[in-house]
Amino acid sequence: MQELRQDPVTGRWVVIAPLRSARPKEFIKEEVEDFEIDELNCSFCPGNEHMTPPEIYSVRPPDTESDKQGWQIRIVPNKFPAFVENPVPLRAPSPFVRRPALGYHEVIIHSPDHRKELSSMPLDHIIKLIEVYKMRFLQISGDSNIKYVHLMVNHGRDSGASLEHPHSQIFGLPLIPEVIQDELGGSLWFNQSRKKCVFCWMLDEEAKSKERVLFENEGFLSFAPFASRFPFEIWVVPKRHTPSFSAIQTVEIEGLARMLSGVLSAFNEKLGRPSYNFFIHSSPCDGGDYPYFHWHAEVFPRVSMISAFELGTGIMINPTAPEKAVEIFKK
Amino acid sequence: MQELRQDPVTGRWVVIAPLRSARPKEFIKEEVEDFEIDELNCSFCPGNEHMTPPEIYSVRPPDTESDKQGWQIRIVPNKFPAFVENPVPLRAPSPFVRRPALGYHEVIIHSPDHRKELSSMPLDHIIKLIEVYKMRFLQISGDSNIKYVHLMVNHGRDSGASLEHPHSQIFGLPLIPEVIQDELGGSLWFNQSRKKCVFCWMLDEEAKSKERVLFENEGFLSFAPFASRFPFEIWVVPKRHTPSFSAIQTVEIEGLARMLSGVLSAFNEKLGRPSYNFFIHSSPCDGGDYPYFHWHAEVFPRVSMISAFELGTGIMINPTAPEKAVEIFKK
Repeated sequence: MQELRQDPVTGRWVVIAPLRSARPKEFIKEEVEDFEIDELNCSFCPGNEHMTPPEIYSVRPPDTESDKQGWQIRIVPNKFPAFVENPVPLRAPSPFVRRPALGYHEVIIHSPDHRKELSSMPLDHIIKLIEVYKMRFLQISGDSNIKYVHLMVNHGRDSGASLEHPHSQIFGLPLIPEVIQDELGGSLWFNQSRKKCVFCWMLDEEAKSKERVLFENEGFLSFAPFASRFPFEIWVVPKRHTPSFSAIQTVEIEGLARMLSGVLSAFNEKLGRPSYNFFIHSSPCDGGDYPYFHWHAEVFPRVSMISAFELGTGIMINPTAPEKAVEIFKK
Repeated sequence: MQELRQDPVTGRWVVIAPLRSARPKEFIKEEVEDFEIDELNCSFCPGNEHMTPPEIYSVRPPDTESDKQGWQIRIVPNKFPAFVENPVPLRAPSPFVRRPALGYHEVIIHSPDHRKELSSMPLDHIIKLIEVYKMRFLQISGDSNIKYVHLMVNHGRDSGASLEHPHSQIFGLPLIPEVIQDELGGSLWFNQSRKKCVFCWMLDEEAKSKERVLFENEGFLSFAPFASRFPFEIWVVPKRHTPSFSAIQTVEIEGLARMLSGVLSAFNEKLGRPSYNFFIHSSPCDGGDYPYFHWHAEVFPRVSMISAFELGTGIMINPTAPEKAVEIFKK
């Protein structure tokens, strides 16, 4: 059912992934209804392991059984995947360009606790979660069909999450997404014209001016980027120039865990526990070489709306200057 | 206060347009609160003309006064503009690239009636509104500082609208937006490689297969595009190859009015009066020649969420195939 379709004007790819034989009213209410379900009926809660497809991996004591209680972190296939390992071949011919949505779409359940948001988990657990990220990221990268791995979190009703129980999603994609192509292109251009990495340059500039810096630790700097698209948007950038997230070192994992926890705590404290999005941008795993790229994380609360201006032009209007955002966080 | 900032990695432009000296809590609640205001306090309602900046243009009987009651359609500057005709010069130097957000940002109030959604207005009034669109579009295009005119509607709470009273917005931009550059580039490429207009080709293909066609009249075809980004997305395309919306003819204005009214009525009837976005994509007014472009309108209800997948990759996941959407509309 899942397929990738290409817009004949722009070349932009879209995934058509029907969730079910949706009647319009079901479809429209679905997100809200899914979100309302109580913990008893939550398919990510302990005791309900049978409500998800069989687990791909879990962190659990050796004396517990797969797909039973006892786990601390659990990876399962998405029940309504946008990408699948064995897509149905496309039959009907079309004058338009399309291809099967071959790939991976998995859920990483953060913990058994339905109510525990990422920043309120013990540091040890966040570290373990990032280790799981790295492990699965590497495994999916190893599939020769996969060109890019996208790791992300939707948290809260306004983030696009359809389930409340805290979780991440990891995608293996059969193409390099447009946003990554733009970042790669820009990084290469900057590197060739100015003989340095654009992210390393930004780290220097931000550390110098300090007006947009939120936190700093040994491995990472977090700051509100100069051209923030969203109010209170924060980038978390490793100080060590590394193209791929998969090369993160043990000591860096701890730094990232601390930094993420700090940034999300700032959101929760100053913005009233907002919905948020989080994703990692990393170099592709298509066999190419991207020495000029610098992996990083982007995090932003979903406190503003995306309107016909942003969707029709691609230009975001941000009512909160990043300098102002950091001032508010630091108050 | 308004400024355009360029992302150093991708070259993407963002508008930083602080609405006010926002404290975070005010900012977050603002949209919802603005939306709740009753008709008595609505700055777009008759009797409250003093609550907007002085009007730029209005359709009103000759015996009525500017900025007083009696108008049928009214254009006023946006009270919190993202672009301004006389921006404050940028003072502090920065290693990053930025420029004043020079331009226009205006509101076209559809009618005095706070509750009258576009499709429920008499056809004559919709025609008058499109004539006003064309007039102001041409005027703003004539400013040599302006490279692109963006005409759009946010309708309803989930559309990004901050006010309920039905209105359009028109922007004069000092640059050609990314989305338009992509459409221009793709149209040129298609034209050069296949010796025809990509939109004319699409009109032919859609009219042939019919499976995605919603309505047809003498001047326009409306269809769910093959690579629909949003559930129930509809494109309204003029049959006559015309690069700029500003060249729309009187007979076409009537066809567009009928078509828009039909599409929005279908949304209201089948999807329960959803929030929606509407915008026109037209050739730039930067003095260049774009004979290969074909203006059109894009309309979509805001019934799905934009998550960290779409925002992090640029790839939309659409749970409703366009063929299915049209089937639902036609039931």
